[in-house]
Amino acid sequence: MNRPQPIEKMIEVIKKFPGVGHKMAERLSYYILKMSNSDVDRFLDSIRKARQIMKSCSTCYNLSEHDPCQICSDSTRDHDVICVVETPQDLIAVSKVKEYRGLYFVLGGALSPLDAIGPAEIKIDNLIKRLKNDSITEVIIATDADSNGEVTAIYIAEIIKKLNIKVTRLGYGLPVGGDIEYADEVTISRAIAGRKEM
Amino acid sequence: MNRPQPIEKMIEVIKKFPGVGHKMAERLSYYILKMSNSDVDRFLDSIRKARQIMKSCSTCYNLSEHDPCQICSDSTRDHDVICVVETPQDLIAVSKVKEYRGLYFVLGGALSPLDAIGPAEIKIDNLIKRLKNDSITEVIIATDADSNGEVTAIYIAEIIKKLNIKVTRLGYGLPVGGDIEYADEVTISRAIAGRKEM
Repeated sequence: MNRPQPIEKMIEVIKKFPGVGHKMAERLSYYILKMSNSDVDRFLDSIRKARQIMKSCSTCYNLSEHDPCQICSDSTRDHDVICVVETPQDLIAVSKVKEYRGLYFVLGGALSPLDAIGPAEIKIDNLIKRLKNDSITEVIIATDADSNGEVTAIYIAEIIKKLNIKVTRLGYGLPVGGDIEYADEVTISRAIAGRKEM
Repeated sequence: MNRPQPIEKMIEVIKKFPGVGHKMAERLSYYILKMSNSDVDRFLDSIRKARQIMKSCSTCYNLSEHDPCQICSDSTRDHDVICVVETPQDLIAVSKVKEYRGLYFVLGGALSPLDAIGPAEIKIDNLIKRLKNDSITEVIIATDADSNGEVTAIYIAEIIKKLNIKVTRLGYGLPVGGDIEYADEVTISRAIAGRKEM
């Protein structure tokens, strides 16, 4: 027997989600079919509401219920410093660091030559425009520590330097609490390069 | 910054899906937020349609667009033999074996003493009723080859034997501890050929 078409359709759609393979999509589809009406309503409502309410802050492109977002409109923060991240999830991770009191900018991804994601596909132009208009003294680049994040950081840094604004990148090194035994060579090498006098 | 409440809500709901942990739920939620309107509509429509159209066959409890389902209403099939499976996914896996031309019965799960799933939680009574009414000469039990599937097979076999109907269980061509849904056709075919009377 072939799988009924409506189930097949649902599997096809769910399979496109990140990190979801065919088997996982099947499992989720049958699970959704078996859910109670109230559970499905809760699920669909949560999607509908989040998509309705959440907007992109027109200053930093973070996802927020308000525009400008909570952070951009917080006058107690340091408006001279911007931390550049790839995604809203990254912003939340950095914002847990209480010592950082500056603002943010969400690129909406990283440059990726292999996936044909160039400067026009992420918000680099908007970042430059903001740097030209606002009085920013330092940009901290906090893109991911993978090759795309690295390429993006280098690309942005080159542009920002020309604007005579200080650019820094998050330090590389051992993750705190990490075991040297399990750290990879590149990380240890970077940690040695970035060693601090005691 | 705390995560905005509408996103938090969506993550909480998605986290309850099988095989989806917190990080995966976060990733899926942000992905859904970034999807185009047409992609989200396609996603929500596929769920709504599948749940609207798919029904439980009142004879075999398979998920189908029709009641009775395609298989139960197929007069070219052998109506004397029933293959008992746990889920509609298992039925699809068995149905790929061309040699098997009988009917099916979907239990809707397996007995699981640890999860407090007893005979009343799955469709055992409906199976017995069907066996009493229809003229069935053999029941092939194709529950999973794990401990719950085994317990279920033994429990059902005991009841069916009293009705003077031949009961068999898929032969141990199946990898022990495996899930029928993930078994390949040849393995299932071998298991049918090597089925044992109980």
